[in-house]
Amino acid sequence: MRVAGAWYRSIWFDDGVRVIDQRQLPHRFDVATLRTLDDAYRAIADMTVRGAPLIAATAAYGLYLAAQAGDDLEAAARRLLSARPTAVNLRWAVDRQREIWRAGAVSPADALRREADRIADEDVRRNESLGRHGLAILQELHRRHPERPLQILTHCNAGWLGTVDWGTAMSPIYQAHDLGLPLHVWVDETRPRNQGALLTAWELAHHGVPHTVIVDNAGGHLMQQGRVDAVLTGTDRTTRTGDVCNKIGTYLKALAAWDNQVPFYVAAPSPSIDWTLRDGLREIPIEERDPREVTHVSGWDGERVRTVRITPAGSAAMNVGFDVTPAQWVTGLITERGLVAASEQGLLSLFPERGPGWRG
Amino acid sequence: MRVAGAWYRSIWFDDGVRVIDQRQLPHRFDVATLRTLDDAYRAIADMTVRGAPLIAATAAYGLYLAAQAGDDLEAAARRLLSARPTAVNLRWAVDRQREIWRAGAVSPADALRREADRIADEDVRRNESLGRHGLAILQELHRRHPERPLQILTHCNAGWLGTVDWGTAMSPIYQAHDLGLPLHVWVDETRPRNQGALLTAWELAHHGVPHTVIVDNAGGHLMQQGRVDAVLTGTDRTTRTGDVCNKIGTYLKALAAWDNQVPFYVAAPSPSIDWTLRDGLREIPIEERDPREVTHVSGWDGERVRTVRITPAGSAAMNVGFDVTPAQWVTGLITERGLVAASEQGLLSLFPERGPGWRG
Repeated sequence: MRVAGAWYRSIWFDDGVRVIDQRQLPHRFDVATLRTLDDAYRAIADMTVRGAPLIAATAAYGLYLAAQAGDDLEAAARRLLSARPTAVNLRWAVDRQREIWRAGAVSPADALRREADRIADEDVRRNESLGRHGLAILQELHRRHPERPLQILTHCNAGWLGTVDWGTAMSPIYQAHDLGLPLHVWVDETRPRNQGALLTAWELAHHGVPHTVIVDNAGGHLMQQGRVDAVLTGTDRTTRTGDVCNKIGTYLKALAAWDNQVPFYVAAPSPSIDWTLRDGLREIPIEERDPREVTHVSGWDGERVRTVRITPAGSAAMNVGFDVTPAQWVTGLITERGLVAASEQGLLSLFPERGPGWRG
Repeated sequence: MRVAGAWYRSIWFDDGVRVIDQRQLPHRFDVATLRTLDDAYRAIADMTVRGAPLIAATAAYGLYLAAQAGDDLEAAARRLLSARPTAVNLRWAVDRQREIWRAGAVSPADALRREADRIADEDVRRNESLGRHGLAILQELHRRHPERPLQILTHCNAGWLGTVDWGTAMSPIYQAHDLGLPLHVWVDETRPRNQGALLTAWELAHHGVPHTVIVDNAGGHLMQQGRVDAVLTGTDRTTRTGDVCNKIGTYLKALAAWDNQVPFYVAAPSPSIDWTLRDGLREIPIEERDPREVTHVSGWDGERVRTVRITPAGSAAMNVGFDVTPAQWVTGLITERGLVAASEQGLLSLFPERGPGWRG
């Protein structure tokens, strides 16, 4: 996607693994180079890169870097898996790379790099395809109110920065905008790390999509007032029964959407689906992060990025990264194969190879 | 309530009208003096004072200051009413003062000051009484799980800082804590102005009540995990039918409470009830404030309070101050006369003088 007119992916390989340092955005645009497994681990853990699909691609390249250095690959895999516990895409990418090194290539590092490139390229194609299916939904919603821009609310960053390119929830939005469909995006700031205010707003501004940043508290009111036509979010892990684990606060928006008859769609590329799970509330591990992300806020003071504390020094804080939206509140899952109901039956209709009687 | 061991109210009169400057908390404890109507207007509009009951008391003293200066009192009343549109307590206090000056006292300024003192004192007694009724609820909830501290979630600041003393939603909590009932408060930070993180946490820390600050996004997850026994909030305006207008985001917590069978109580002292309204969503004016409160965050940088921008420079923001929680999601209203259902029938059972057939 576009950054100041130039085209970028969020991760790429030239003579090294390059990523956009997302901790500096929107205040600075920096490219970081990952040279070792440890670089890749830290980039995931400290959120230099974030977003389930981009974490997957970064882990895939991280295993290439480990192989290049002659590291123990199983140990490298375990280390990467421990960096962020919630997104299942990470495990999916590690499993793909494990098949490569277990196949015993003559040059494992080369094979792992080619597979990482494939994982990245497939992510782009998958998100583009997912976006086409989402685009059809937006076009249909727009036909109901052709006289005004379509109003979409999104939470966190499910844009191209969270993937290799296109984004998941934002892919339909970019495709609709590029086709001239008038739309406006309400961007939840997404506390505590403000990925909406920092990253989604930055993406939309660079791509020229009209948008307004709101606090996470505001979406319910906007829906009550008829100012939201649809909610579109990403997912870090989706159960085979359609429960959606996504950035903390997603569940609250789903409830408000339901109460106001606003459709609530989740962009769920297949690597985010955990076919081994049936109960999102009980089975998905929820990451708890440093309380400092709640008590302190970073921003631009006119000259540089500064961090300030907003809570009293003596008050404890808790920082839980994700919540689970039970399938009953999800209008539909948008996958690269099409739109389905958030249910096992719905998902198996598009992914029959995951069903009990499948003979491929 | 206690500040570093000393007892304070949020507003008092000695040789002038004194208020705690709430814009500096928790980083600095400053007392401001209001000398003119304009001081009172600005203190309300710029949120030096905030919270519906405290706004009411400040307006009452503001009219005394206007009378002392020989200002036109009707013009002064209009100006004060324009400072914050959503809280109905402001109108209630102005109406009480209007009765005083229309009664034609020999010294209107003295009469208005005495009435302002009465309004402040009554607020304290009302909140203490409301707190006793709320305390009974907390004691009953605690009896269900005597083995562990009671877990209460609150939004914004409905503590003593938002009233003259005791607070509304926090009054039962302080009374329970003072009686030795073990409890812990989840404090929603309450974006965009962070009144929870800044003020409620500060109050609780000074009073010694265990608490944890969370982002506004986290409450739904905590309720899903069974970590919240009750939600307690304040209200800026309650319709005669029990719809509750309170700080933006309250509605989302009410939905989550309902979905998880967590009781959702609103502390509604009678001056917050607007007996002229029946439909909160259509009839209550919702204040829209400066988008800068969304795009910029203030906090302590180790030496002083600094303001940083969190959004990209080119992104618009919107700042809507309140939302309406329809009565159907409210378990009960706690008033100074007792607990009632959030309905016209419920409210009239305690306030029969507001019913159609009342002969007082």
